[in-house]
Amino acid sequence: MATDQNNFQAIISHCKEYGFVFPSSEIYEGLSAVYDYGQYGAQLKKNIRDYWWKSMTQLNDNIVGIDAAIFMHPTTWKASGHVDSFSDPMIDNKDSKKRYRVDHLIEAYADTLPEAEGAAVLAQMDDLLKENDFAGLKALIEEKKIACAVSGTVNWTEIRNFNLMFSTQLGSVTDEASEIYLRPETAQGIFVNFLNVQKTGRMKIPFGIAQTGKAFRNEIVARQFIFRMREFEQMEMQFFVRPGTQQEWFQHWKEARMKWHQSLGFDTAKYRFKPHIKLAHYADAAEDIEFEFPIGFKEVEGIHSRTDFDLKQHQEYSRKKQQYFDPEINQNYIPYVIETSIGLDRMFLLTVCAAYEEQDLSTADKQDSRVVMKIPAMLAPIKLAVFPLTKKDGLPELAQELIDECKPYFHTYYEEKDSIGKRYRRQDAIGTPFCITVDHQTKEDHTVTIRYRDSMEQERIHMSAVRDLVMKATMF
Amino acid sequence: MATDQNNFQAIISHCKEYGFVFPSSEIYEGLSAVYDYGQYGAQLKKNIRDYWWKSMTQLNDNIVGIDAAIFMHPTTWKASGHVDSFSDPMIDNKDSKKRYRVDHLIEAYADTLPEAEGAAVLAQMDDLLKENDFAGLKALIEEKKIACAVSGTVNWTEIRNFNLMFSTQLGSVTDEASEIYLRPETAQGIFVNFLNVQKTGRMKIPFGIAQTGKAFRNEIVARQFIFRMREFEQMEMQFFVRPGTQQEWFQHWKEARMKWHQSLGFDTAKYRFKPHIKLAHYADAAEDIEFEFPIGFKEVEGIHSRTDFDLKQHQEYSRKKQQYFDPEINQNYIPYVIETSIGLDRMFLLTVCAAYEEQDLSTADKQDSRVVMKIPAMLAPIKLAVFPLTKKDGLPELAQELIDECKPYFHTYYEEKDSIGKRYRRQDAIGTPFCITVDHQTKEDHTVTIRYRDSMEQERIHMSAVRDLVMKATMF
Repeated sequence: MATDQNNFQAIISHCKEYGFVFPSSEIYEGLSAVYDYGQYGAQLKKNIRDYWWKSMTQLNDNIVGIDAAIFMHPTTWKASGHVDSFSDPMIDNKDSKKRYRVDHLIEAYADTLPEAEGAAVLAQMDDLLKENDFAGLKALIEEKKIACAVSGTVNWTEIRNFNLMFSTQLGSVTDEASEIYLRPETAQGIFVNFLNVQKTGRMKIPFGIAQTGKAFRNEIVARQFIFRMREFEQMEMQFFVRPGTQQEWFQHWKEARMKWHQSLGFDTAKYRFKPHIKLAHYADAAEDIEFEFPIGFKEVEGIHSRTDFDLKQHQEYSRKKQQYFDPEINQNYIPYVIETSIGLDRMFLLTVCAAYEEQDLSTADKQDSRVVMKIPAMLAPIKLAVFPLTKKDGLPELAQELIDECKPYFHTYYEEKDSIGKRYRRQDAIGTPFCITVDHQTKEDHTVTIRYRDSMEQERIHMSAVRDLVMKATMF
Repeated sequence: MATDQNNFQAIISHCKEYGFVFPSSEIYEGLSAVYDYGQYGAQLKKNIRDYWWKSMTQLNDNIVGIDAAIFMHPTTWKASGHVDSFSDPMIDNKDSKKRYRVDHLIEAYADTLPEAEGAAVLAQMDDLLKENDFAGLKALIEEKKIACAVSGTVNWTEIRNFNLMFSTQLGSVTDEASEIYLRPETAQGIFVNFLNVQKTGRMKIPFGIAQTGKAFRNEIVARQFIFRMREFEQMEMQFFVRPGTQQEWFQHWKEARMKWHQSLGFDTAKYRFKPHIKLAHYADAAEDIEFEFPIGFKEVEGIHSRTDFDLKQHQEYSRKKQQYFDPEINQNYIPYVIETSIGLDRMFLLTVCAAYEEQDLSTADKQDSRVVMKIPAMLAPIKLAVFPLTKKDGLPELAQELIDECKPYFHTYYEEKDSIGKRYRRQDAIGTPFCITVDHQTKEDHTVTIRYRDSMEQERIHMSAVRDLVMKATMF
């Protein structure tokens, strides 16, 4: 698979230089696999979230949104299976007391071997991991004499699973304190509220519940910028259907979600479906929507037919019936569920990767280039920048008049420093689709120059037409 | 102070019954002081957040937004003072091993005394607490022979502070794991990004950075619904100014924020300023905006002149200069900061409390009443409900046509069940400002009945006028 690490590094640098993404707490040397969104990033992220929210809730009569807390009753995660099986196998060296993830330990060893030999070890490891054969994995470590890097010994403990959920103590009085988890996914907040929403909202099946919000996973992380973070944001929708109709709804949501992605206008060849090879125990169908990032095709969204697994588990653990009475067929049942689950941070990364372009604009006479972020106009953090040609002759006041007329409707930016060419370039770099220059002619006839980000074309239009033109091009 | 607990209880019940707020993980008997927002609550909360965000960032040329992570480098909280002093004094009984908050222990004892005697004990306690006199507090407990409810003994440990921050372990490998905190406020995410934003955004002082997001405090909680939760959302703005100008900016933001509150149209007599009697060590001015809830006047927002305390602390702990070069006066300095800090959940509670009304509509002939939520139209979760008078004769199709025309622009609701009167009442209960009824006359002349939530007045208008009428009344 073609990957372009240089391009990926350039995008990461660009995101930092232009206020999209900063390493978290950077003045303290950052926090591993956690990032902050800067002034343009925060607005782009919000626009993506709002676009998803509107398309899910406002445009669908039968989907409503909720906003469940990050803290949930700990039994939730027993019912969902996360307490028992959301984990990685780890091993401790008895001499150094150092703990390793088993796959990392074996991989580091395999790297030291000749290629064919290393590949054989990795293949053996993969088989054992798939079968959860911890004794076999430990035997492999001992057979190959894989030693701890610190103690140099092969004196290992048994292998055991280490849970990926973050835990904390609720309640400050020791006796009353209980261990709770930061949710590792937002889906369960929807499931535990299924009947509350169905009843108070008088919802009829089929219907959906959507939610956006933070989730947390204590992963040993491959450093792929914001692709895999320990704190991240999900946009999930659970669609409740009559048992037996799940395949048809699965198809429906696969297509609907791909259509949503392609509504952004990026190259359609960069998207593909990827069926899950091994289904999770609760699923009867599952496919990912993948996008071709500079680091290769990667999952952006999953569409999963989760059956009645989650509601059944919650019914068992809570001892509260999670049934729906279907008046059309006069029957009670636990609904089946189709889930669409998308990472907001990944959608952000997709957007900046797809939008980022380094263009050579050189002519016979002159070397020139630009970096432009072709962010879809409706998602762009700033919709319109307005520049007075000079800082005097009343041009700043005229430009400010236009800003004041437009800013109740969309995000604007005013800039009076440097040459117009430099000002255009800075807006290109943050993805502003429209720039307006106010000059001396504006004082005479109220016309201005509009300059289009993607084509770099310019034309003269009347000042009074600007607001509506930008609104039409940027609203969703 | 007049309080109305009955009214408050009625509002809490209404919020649950109509899908605004549910106890978190309710099927597992809930989680103390944590709540989930239901289908109408989630949308109302989002609308309040968006209204604040727009008024802060989009409408102010010199304020930008960011979105910093909940996880921050732990040194952040040493610099901010939270590790050392964001705590309550606690004491342990050596026999029962039970831990108590000192003020709770003494209060429980005072409750058992005759009124005057109890009040004297509480006054003594307050003085000692204010002076952080732990030895004096312990002497008071021993002098009064205050015993542990479990062991019955007065065999106490020393008093020590117990921190209100939630902590968790980052990294699953023991040696590398570090204790981090869930942020107890969002402000520090702005301070540590001050220079990143200022430089990449070419910001000139005075300028502001705004942020919304979750914060967490492990409080022993008074049960006041969503007023004080362990997980809550803040909307904060830090405004960076030239030292010496902070008093003038403090006045500016006090007025600007009160104006924002009053733009919602609730009774202005219910708002007041409350200066802080004792200023925090970092502040040189601080006032709250209070609102009269059914449980009395309570803080909704704080405006604080924080001086250069936070940036100075971060400069010291990070050893990275947090200075701004001011080209107008040709000087480097650490800016002063005015903070506006508002609780989104409290703003939500304010909105439902101010909007909730039980109306007696009885006439000489007939007993009647309604519950109406007079939520400002621009914040209402549903803007327009459309009802076909009957389920036949093509009326549902006509109603659906209107829905389809409107839903790209705002949240709509379609309902065909029960009498029109009942349908109006249900929309009153969730605060929908406009209802439309489609009847047989609509088929002839395309007119419909519009019914206004607050006045309950009805009039006949042309179907083609509906969309613009609702848009004008509900957009912000």
